[in-house]
Amino acid sequence: MRQGNTWHRILLKMMHRGRIRHLAQELRRRSIPSLLVTNLPDVRYLTGFTGSNAALVVVAEPRVSARLFTDGRYTVQAKREVQGATVRIAPKSALAEACDWAEQHAARCGFDRSQTTVAALASMKKSLGKRSFFVPADGLIAALRMVKDAIEVDYMRRAASLTCSLYEGLLGWIEPGMRERDIAAELEHRARLSGAEAMSFETIVASGERSSQPHARATQAHISAGNLVTLDFGIVLDGYCSDMTRTFAVGYGEKPVPPKAKVRWAEQREVFGAVLAAQQAGVNAVRAGATCGEVDRAARSVLEAAGYGKYFTHSTGHGVGLEIHEVPRVGKDSKDVLKAGTVITIEPGVYLPGRFGVRIEDSVLVTEDGAEVLTPAHKGWMEL
Amino acid sequence: MRQGNTWHRILLKMMHRGRIRHLAQELRRRSIPSLLVTNLPDVRYLTGFTGSNAALVVVAEPRVSARLFTDGRYTVQAKREVQGATVRIAPKSALAEACDWAEQHAARCGFDRSQTTVAALASMKKSLGKRSFFVPADGLIAALRMVKDAIEVDYMRRAASLTCSLYEGLLGWIEPGMRERDIAAELEHRARLSGAEAMSFETIVASGERSSQPHARATQAHISAGNLVTLDFGIVLDGYCSDMTRTFAVGYGEKPVPPKAKVRWAEQREVFGAVLAAQQAGVNAVRAGATCGEVDRAARSVLEAAGYGKYFTHSTGHGVGLEIHEVPRVGKDSKDVLKAGTVITIEPGVYLPGRFGVRIEDSVLVTEDGAEVLTPAHKGWMEL
Repeated sequence: MRQGNTWHRILLKMMHRGRIRHLAQELRRRSIPSLLVTNLPDVRYLTGFTGSNAALVVVAEPRVSARLFTDGRYTVQAKREVQGATVRIAPKSALAEACDWAEQHAARCGFDRSQTTVAALASMKKSLGKRSFFVPADGLIAALRMVKDAIEVDYMRRAASLTCSLYEGLLGWIEPGMRERDIAAELEHRARLSGAEAMSFETIVASGERSSQPHARATQAHISAGNLVTLDFGIVLDGYCSDMTRTFAVGYGEKPVPPKAKVRWAEQREVFGAVLAAQQAGVNAVRAGATCGEVDRAARSVLEAAGYGKYFTHSTGHGVGLEIHEVPRVGKDSKDVLKAGTVITIEPGVYLPGRFGVRIEDSVLVTEDGAEVLTPAHKGWMEL
Repeated sequence: MRQGNTWHRILLKMMHRGRIRHLAQELRRRSIPSLLVTNLPDVRYLTGFTGSNAALVVVAEPRVSARLFTDGRYTVQAKREVQGATVRIAPKSALAEACDWAEQHAARCGFDRSQTTVAALASMKKSLGKRSFFVPADGLIAALRMVKDAIEVDYMRRAASLTCSLYEGLLGWIEPGMRERDIAAELEHRARLSGAEAMSFETIVASGERSSQPHARATQAHISAGNLVTLDFGIVLDGYCSDMTRTFAVGYGEKPVPPKAKVRWAEQREVFGAVLAAQQAGVNAVRAGATCGEVDRAARSVLEAAGYGKYFTHSTGHGVGLEIHEVPRVGKDSKDVLKAGTVITIEPGVYLPGRFGVRIEDSVLVTEDGAEVLTPAHKGWMEL
């Protein structure tokens, strides 16, 4: 979060308190008197703390209280950042102290099974000696985080907007013959100078035959005429991730397309058109109340009708927020229902093994009656 | 791993096969017929695969075999990268198919409790229906990875060497008045252009009062005369992480130290001297056979003797390799015994809350009779 003016700080404080109260309501509704939170993005969401070691206990009744346990490296930082919870610097284990404190303040304590290792659960139980104290309570914070509040939407809009500017600026800089890795380096440098805290994942710059690998790394390869380049990247701004993919062609400039490249060039354009149509169909299917499976189907069926179904080898998208991959998964048969305030990606792709690939991705905010595309940078066919 | 020439590829193949055989020996020694590996750095270590979704099964008897399960996004990449294991693209769940395959090929299957969530274990058991099939087998691969082989040492030397060059080059560029975040941006850009795949963690540039936070982020603050700057960063090269910290002072140049800054300036130098002595004592204590607790004690006792013990709020160091934090932990009372081939950091620090802090860190390779400092960049007092 930004260290802003006094009003901004008061707003952040209210926001974090509100989230903890909201979580406490959910806990009471499920008759779980307290919750142990160890997933760091969840801790950040609830309290604003950004350190690398934390165990938070939220007690739901008789009155809402929360205490965050961390270690001596974060004495100063925790005091500054944490809102809505008291802070305890644990000389030994933050987790063990958190368990003790939970036991003193509640009869039972929930934990998220998908965020807790088997080893951690064993040590949690060991530190107490009471085996029935910890009860499964999965996905509670993930569900809260799935619906972004006004401040989060503001953060995500700004991250997405900067992502578009960076992309557009980079297009004016890229030239045929450059190396994939140098393009990634320039993009990341510009992102940093523009205020990004980090990239939200390893930048993908995949050209030519390597664009047929959905998750190819940027290499020392040069981008060259007659090939496609897939650029998939995101930044972190105020803790929130953006995510966008564009595929563009490296053209022949003034020269005509060489005769032996003509067939492939035409095929690249055809695949590109199919992916763009699928991506648009996916975006069009988004609205509060739709299931993620329906959105996936909308995009996938376009590619199937065009004969490329079997080359679309992944899900249509995923939730995004404090983490680059969050619930919901926008995949085949997903029953998850979209809610207004959720941000998801729509990113169909076609990958012809050993030949080339195309992926186009936007981050979109789900609204009551549709979708707001957060990443409106040009996505049509473009020759460099 | 680099895509090198044929000899390099053959070497990599032998190396991965050797690691899987080594693991199989350990499994037989413990009478565990097979192991499920889901931690991605472990999968990379054993097979070379760098994708973001994988479940690997290693069968130890009657003969060694291994199969890696991933999804359709990695069809091409897995074929190229994976060595020492067959590859299966799982249409649904890589984990579920891996469990099935393990059950067909072994009577029981080990898993690492510290790398497996409670939810994952539940779904592993569910997909089989046999509750006694999975048995705890913790830390086997971590123990192998703790001792770097010749190729790994080569990779880590190169990553550390590039880290030093980047630091030294940056010193010639930094000027008083620059922003912390711009310094981080420049460093990261140079790292990328020099071939780094990524930074091994979020670069720390902490100046002035913020240097008293061990894990401060780079902000928009300017570095200014009379203050210390802590620069803690690392790069990833061929998958391996480097880690180094230096603290330097922003001097007054031609001007004399202002009278009211003299006391603090002297105190900064004194703290710096104590941390440097502690860091050197830590390095001097490193050798195969020493315990991590002894190394921690060597560094910590210097700071305690100087009266700064309570301001050294973290462990002296940690293992480093494919991950930025690996075993062993070089902390108080740690009984872990150092082995030749292990790479650890030695990074004591003193943090005076709200005032300033100093940390100095090297990555060192443990040898039979001492330590090889992999990051020999200048670490004495330096005024910019």
